[in-house]
Amino acid sequence: MSKIPVTVLGATGAVGQRFVQMLAEHPFFEIVSLSGSQRSAGQRYGEACRWVLPGSPPESVCQMRVSPTTTDLPGRVAFSALPAGIAREVEPQFASQGYAVCSNASALRQTTGVPLLIPEINADHLAMIPTQKSVLGWKGLAVTSPNCTTNGIAMTLKPLDDAFGVETLFCSTMQAISGAGYPGLPALDINDTVLPYIQNEEEKIQSETNLLLGRMVNGERLPAKITVSAHANRVPVVDGHTITMSIKFKTKPSVADVIHILESFRGPKEVAQMPTAPRQPIIVRREADRPQPRRDRDAGHGMSVSVGRVRSCPIFDIRLVTVVHNTVRGAAGGSVLNAELLSAKGLLD
Amino acid sequence: MSKIPVTVLGATGAVGQRFVQMLAEHPFFEIVSLSGSQRSAGQRYGEACRWVLPGSPPESVCQMRVSPTTTDLPGRVAFSALPAGIAREVEPQFASQGYAVCSNASALRQTTGVPLLIPEINADHLAMIPTQKSVLGWKGLAVTSPNCTTNGIAMTLKPLDDAFGVETLFCSTMQAISGAGYPGLPALDINDTVLPYIQNEEEKIQSETNLLLGRMVNGERLPAKITVSAHANRVPVVDGHTITMSIKFKTKPSVADVIHILESFRGPKEVAQMPTAPRQPIIVRREADRPQPRRDRDAGHGMSVSVGRVRSCPIFDIRLVTVVHNTVRGAAGGSVLNAELLSAKGLLD
Amino acid sequence: MSKIPVTVLGATGAVGQRFVQMLAEHPFFEIVSLSGSQRSAGQRYGEACRWVLPGSPPESVCQMRVSPTTTDLPGRVAFSALPAGIAREVEPQFASQGYAVCSNASALRQTTGVPLLIPEINADHLAMIPTQKSVLGWKGLAVTSPNCTTNGIAMTLKPLDDAFGVETLFCSTMQAISGAGYPGLPALDINDTVLPYIQNEEEKIQSETNLLLGRMVNGERLPAKITVSAHANRVPVVDGHTITMSIKFKTKPSVADVIHILESFRGPKEVAQMPTAPRQPIIVRREADRPQPRRDRDAGHGMSVSVGRVRSCPIFDIRLVTVVHNTVRGAAGGSVLNAELLSAKGLLD
Amino acid sequence: MSKIPVTVLGATGAVGQRFVQMLAEHPFFEIVSLSGSQRSAGQRYGEACRWVLPGSPPESVCQMRVSPTTTDLPGRVAFSALPAGIAREVEPQFASQGYAVCSNASALRQTTGVPLLIPEINADHLAMIPTQKSVLGWKGLAVTSPNCTTNGIAMTLKPLDDAFGVETLFCSTMQAISGAGYPGLPALDINDTVLPYIQNEEEKIQSETNLLLGRMVNGERLPAKITVSAHANRVPVVDGHTITMSIKFKTKPSVADVIHILESFRGPKEVAQMPTAPRQPIIVRREADRPQPRRDRDAGHGMSVSVGRVRSCPIFDIRLVTVVHNTVRGAAGGSVLNAELLSAKGLLD
Repeated sequence: MSKIPVTVLGATGAVGQRFVQMLAEHPFFEIVSLSGSQRSAGQRYGEACRWVLPGSPPESVCQMRVSPTTTDLPGRVAFSALPAGIAREVEPQFASQGYAVCSNASALRQTTGVPLLIPEINADHLAMIPTQKSVLGWKGLAVTSPNCTTNGIAMTLKPLDDAFGVETLFCSTMQAISGAGYPGLPALDINDTVLPYIQNEEEKIQSETNLLLGRMVNGERLPAKITVSAHANRVPVVDGHTITMSIKFKTKPSVADVIHILESFRGPKEVAQMPTAPRQPIIVRREADRPQPRRDRDAGHGMSVSVGRVRSCPIFDIRLVTVVHNTVRGAAGGSVLNAELLSAKGLLD
Repeated sequence: MSKIPVTVLGATGAVGQRFVQMLAEHPFFEIVSLSGSQRSAGQRYGEACRWVLPGSPPESVCQMRVSPTTTDLPGRVAFSALPAGIAREVEPQFASQGYAVCSNASALRQTTGVPLLIPEINADHLAMIPTQKSVLGWKGLAVTSPNCTTNGIAMTLKPLDDAFGVETLFCSTMQAISGAGYPGLPALDINDTVLPYIQNEEEKIQSETNLLLGRMVNGERLPAKITVSAHANRVPVVDGHTITMSIKFKTKPSVADVIHILESFRGPKEVAQMPTAPRQPIIVRREADRPQPRRDRDAGHGMSVSVGRVRSCPIFDIRLVTVVHNTVRGAAGGSVLNAELLSAKGLLD
Repeated sequence: MSKIPVTVLGATGAVGQRFVQMLAEHPFFEIVSLSGSQRSAGQRYGEACRWVLPGSPPESVCQMRVSPTTTDLPGRVAFSALPAGIAREVEPQFASQGYAVCSNASALRQTTGVPLLIPEINADHLAMIPTQKSVLGWKGLAVTSPNCTTNGIAMTLKPLDDAFGVETLFCSTMQAISGAGYPGLPALDINDTVLPYIQNEEEKIQSETNLLLGRMVNGERLPAKITVSAHANRVPVVDGHTITMSIKFKTKPSVADVIHILESFRGPKEVAQMPTAPRQPIIVRREADRPQPRRDRDAGHGMSVSVGRVRSCPIFDIRLVTVVHNTVRGAAGGSVLNAELLSAKGLLD
Repeated sequence: MSKIPVTVLGATGAVGQRFVQMLAEHPFFEIVSLSGSQRSAGQRYGEACRWVLPGSPPESVCQMRVSPTTTDLPGRVAFSALPAGIAREVEPQFASQGYAVCSNASALRQTTGVPLLIPEINADHLAMIPTQKSVLGWKGLAVTSPNCTTNGIAMTLKPLDDAFGVETLFCSTMQAISGAGYPGLPALDINDTVLPYIQNEEEKIQSETNLLLGRMVNGERLPAKITVSAHANRVPVVDGHTITMSIKFKTKPSVADVIHILESFRGPKEVAQMPTAPRQPIIVRREADRPQPRRDRDAGHGMSVSVGRVRSCPIFDIRLVTVVHNTVRGAAGGSVLNAELLSAKGLLD
């Protein structure tokens, strides 16, 4: 079978680079074009891009020319790592012209008919696509992946919600600097310090968590009604977001119940077989001081979420800590897995 | 007036060094002896001590000999930076022999009759001293300063509790590495990562907060009854603990109310006149991204607590962030201020 | 005596903020105006400036309006923290109009007649000023302070050069992130890594060292002829540059000789009396592992250079390590001391 | 072919863990025993060992019992990650009893007849083994791998020495914290600072470089006679040593010559075929600011050395920067490659 041709929009940025890295030798997809800003258009990718990941850009991509972000780019799937402002304008054009847009931007996450997707936990939200087609009149389609932090939170909550019903969530985050993109944070703002503020992050966590855990009823997504209070912080860590959580359930579980449910979670079988899906979506650590971002961010090639310190909470029922790789599971990897799911469901045919 | 002679117990450790630094040119006190471990006893302080603070140990102290920790040490006040295990055994001996023990160790914090003290917020707890004398039969006395993190929490909560009644507190900490002492944390455990666990820290926060905010009734301290849930984390920051908090009150205040109460808090007049007391115990920052440990830990020479991001909370009433200097206000500085209060109250005569 | 009115050019940047901090309560000088970019002109300094130093901008300055950088700014002295490009154009205009320009920018450092000045080591270079006046025809004058790293190097070498004659210098630097200004370095480029390149830095070290150690002959500066090879690197440290050096002398000194000469160096008496001059320009550390940037950068309020690990070199004669505070001695503090020297010499009358 | 049984001495330490990680699924070798300190002997490896690498210890090893370090341990090869003091005593016993000792410790590096080995550059030093047997009378044998920093230096110099003759080397290092083992460096000693001293490191660099680049004459190793001056520093980087170098050659090469020689270096064919050997031992980076430890340490799975900033030197001939992964190429990986070479040479039969 020949590979599906894809384009990467915003390919020179930090998340764009992760897309390039994960797609360069992908069994389903083949990068046939790349877009970048005005400044980099026309240059070879290897020159246009200041590579911020370890090593060098994949050789197969280095010689490709960066194009402007226009809807005549070759490719069936358009992976989007565009800045929010540009994405808002451009992504609907690409979907309208027939591309399957798999976006990591926040632009369309709240748009009616556009699924916010983590394949292991809400693959059934793809049932929104017919509504999307009818309401928006697009020739193609669009799916989005959530905010990096919310990814870790929703992955952790979903199996627990199914088992015990999540009512309320307190969370406080310690987020990595790569989450701010490149150039992103000035070093003077984060070395030997903590930045107790990330613009719009708390709002995204609060709203996207409820979209992700929503239920499908007659092709329509009914958001969950979890009350969420988030404190978002940046810490001097390169990759990997850490989230402390206190959770209140409808049915109070024991610590052992929570560990059991998290550890045995696997997601739908057809998702588990996808090339980017980790063997185990949620890994529970028993050590007193795990998970930690440096030691756990790469679990499952960056696609597993690690949970630890599961213990009771004096206010709610359970306290725990989650670590998620913010630029793999929480960004490019999540969107690639979304595209794999679209492929498995025949939505790229 | 001649200065009051004092001894520093455990003077070569990280907190001991802060004591030495803060007492070397103190207007009330004069270091007349120093104690250290078996290994360092007999050496000059300048040689025995691997100085971990900036610069060098004060010249006036460098030539003093380190003594073993025995109750024949010259001094009227004994500042204790002893490890918990040794403190438990030794501090009662010093108090019994007539010293005024001002301890930063956790050993006596929960002992009946021993005040856990932050002068600005509960100087009235000194009324426990007569009970202490009668119950424990000591010739001298002992007061303790709280855990470094709890210091920041209690300073923030006390004026709010007086005004609106604090019912419930959710908090998540991002604590500095100096809080673990020296040698303390291996660099491999904290560089480019977060350690989501600090032994006994969550328990201390939960219990000491209630002791500090307790009320005196007939010479007895009735602990407060705030339900506290804490998540304690270590982050790669040298000095300064950052704490995110969500607070539920008996009487719901507005954001403006909270800011006003915090900013106008001054503590008792006689405390405010002490040499180590900051001009303003609580500083409220208006910037979106303050307080931060590197930029705010030295506020009020490390004795002010900085609060910011005061905003409403989707679950409780108010969210905010506090930064406290963990080895100044949260350790040695707190105990020095306690001794200044004892002096002002005539308890060192 | 009333204070001398001064202006700070480029006052909102990282070095500009240090100027403001050091001048806010200066015994000789009084800030009467401030300049900034187009974007910040017209705003109050407290709003225009994202303060990157600890704490807050001085209250006395917060309410002042930021002006555009034009030569009708009130002030007798113009402290310049302008970017190199703008400085090249603007600083001569200010000097021409009668201001005494004390610049930290690199623009005029190589200009004929403009002294590159570190008061302790080459105050006699002020004898270039008459040439400056005659050649450039300025109503005012200009003096410059050297590159931050070169500051530490030249301070260390000068007394040794006087005593033993410096022939050759190998050096490798480990420079702090604040040296790159604000926003400066992206955090992703320096966290958990080393950046083995700083644009133009090696060239500056090589040429400015020779200017600083030059001799005055008949009012003309003859540069020294030290062969310098520099390797410039950025490391994840907030403040304080560390420099390893191997030095070859005309007359080979012993390790003890070198320590003695460095430690007894004081600079000219009239410089030592200036308010910003440190008590001891060069501090020699005896510990095996000092100087270190975090523990030694603030020596002499950031104006002393710390030297340690003085030992023999298998290739040249002596190896040693120097630490200098890059934004105090190495930037604003150096220029303030230059202005103090101008004042003492009657060049501001 | 069945695998060769091996033991890992000092398996619970930081380097021991790298051995376990690299040997767990090795095509030639199979771990059949593990040794640790008295304290850990008898425990399962998974419990005895505080795993400091990412993820978890390999499952195949977790259940193995840790043994005391005695010469009845099963295994044909003994990989040693023992502390220097213990290694000095124990490694000769193992070699004497018939084990092939592949050591990463410094104990035997200077012993007559014991090769200090980097297979790509001095595989011919194995010709010392007959001398070793005759002089030391061991039933088995011992080979050692060099100090982590020297690894990167010698790899860089060897092809250049062959081509142009290296006469003199000035180097200044910026070494990662993992090089100090675990617990190793206290976090308070390295966060936001540089430690300009590493015990014995400069001496090791100076002497081991000459052993590694020595020539074999009649079965005897004649050390090279390069004059080396080293400045060793620790910086806040987790993994990866960075070394700045200035090199003087017998025949002065151009920058292009140096790049060409480094880039085309491959080492002996039989070494290049070994499973742990990298495809390219030396990678030359062209970017202005590479190599950097975070982005280049994992090149060639941590076994390639990265070189960059090749440029002329005002004092010597050439300046450049090298990055080497200190716990892979510079420690366990180097010793595993040594063992693979022994196997290829029939020395394990």
